[in-house]
Amino acid sequence: MSLSKWRVKASRQVLRDRWIAVRADDCVTEDGVEISPYYVFDYPDWVHVVALDSQNRVLLIRQYRHGSGAISIELPAGAIDPADADPLAAGARELLEETGFGGTMSLSGVASPNPATHSNRIHTVVARNVTPVGERRVDPTERTEPFFVSIEEAVRLATSGEMVAAIQVASLLSALLDMGALELSRDGSPSRD
Amino acid sequence: MSLSKWRVKASRQVLRDRWIAVRADDCVTEDGVEISPYYVFDYPDWVHVVALDSQNRVLLIRQYRHGSGAISIELPAGAIDPADADPLAAGARELLEETGFGGTMSLSGVASPNPATHSNRIHTVVARNVTPVGERRVDPTERTEPFFVSIEEAVRLATSGEMVAAIQVASLLSALLDMGALELSRDGSPSRD
Repeated sequence: MSLSKWRVKASRQVLRDRWIAVRADDCVTEDGVEISPYYVFDYPDWVHVVALDSQNRVLLIRQYRHGSGAISIELPAGAIDPADADPLAAGARELLEETGFGGTMSLSGVASPNPATHSNRIHTVVARNVTPVGERRVDPTERTEPFFVSIEEAVRLATSGEMVAAIQVASLLSALLDMGALELSRDGSPSRD
Repeated sequence: MSLSKWRVKASRQVLRDRWIAVRADDCVTEDGVEISPYYVFDYPDWVHVVALDSQNRVLLIRQYRHGSGAISIELPAGAIDPADADPLAAGARELLEETGFGGTMSLSGVASPNPATHSNRIHTVVARNVTPVGERRVDPTERTEPFFVSIEEAVRLATSGEMVAAIQVASLLSALLDMGALELSRDGSPSRD
């Protein structure tokens, strides 16, 4: 058995506004099965910022999220704007807007929020040695409260579900692995059942 | 500054089929800013299965995903059906359907795919000592190819972007931390800039 792409017989825009863009594709699988329509979310790319200060504390925010209907603990993050030169610039902009902090930016990784439904990508950016550099710009639709935690506490928040956003847990844990703050256990095997 | 929920003045269903359920809420933020409509995805809850055999190899699948338009390396996963007794039963069913394997199931954690847009939750389930237990049920809209990798290779796939689905990277890395296969580095600090 091999895997191949679905054929798209027709495609149309269903929803588009500031918040969402949904496309409906009439698809045929490799086995000839029709899936009409299959909806795809055409968001712009997003940037997630894993920001650490000189003591390696992680900068997080609290924000109301209407999908879950609850206050969420998150990484500074947002959509990459057409005016952003690249994901690093977008990350620096979002970090400043949401926290007032800035630092030395580098790219950690690229992923998809959910390749089943989303066509856009997440760029995970690391900001090191962050310091206060300006005024937060509090968007009235995006009120955020920044706070610092230790790496150990950030990992606890991520694995306990208190940092609830899976797409951000992925960025945080991947970046911590990338920078060597997390690692395979000594023998690379589970120590607990 | 405090954070509080948005008030919903009106709510209506925009899209609903086998694949998607989108709700449009007319919202007012705590600052009195109107956001009308704000779209929310009302999917059923999902289950992700981190499955390990007796040698601690991780069972993954390859699957075409139409959002990204590419073959994706993923965890066995799917929506929790009304007929599933609980997330563990749903995980066992998805694992069997997609891979033909079964094992000892336990719950690792619960998260949200993206609390900004999704109202549903992801239940991450661990399956230990998995063995072949039955026939795969190949859904023609969900052709999957199962394969095993070491934990080290699974972590490499997750952090390199080769396992592209951020929601699944979160489940994999969180479960590996939960079972002690990943841990904070010796001094809990980054070793690389």
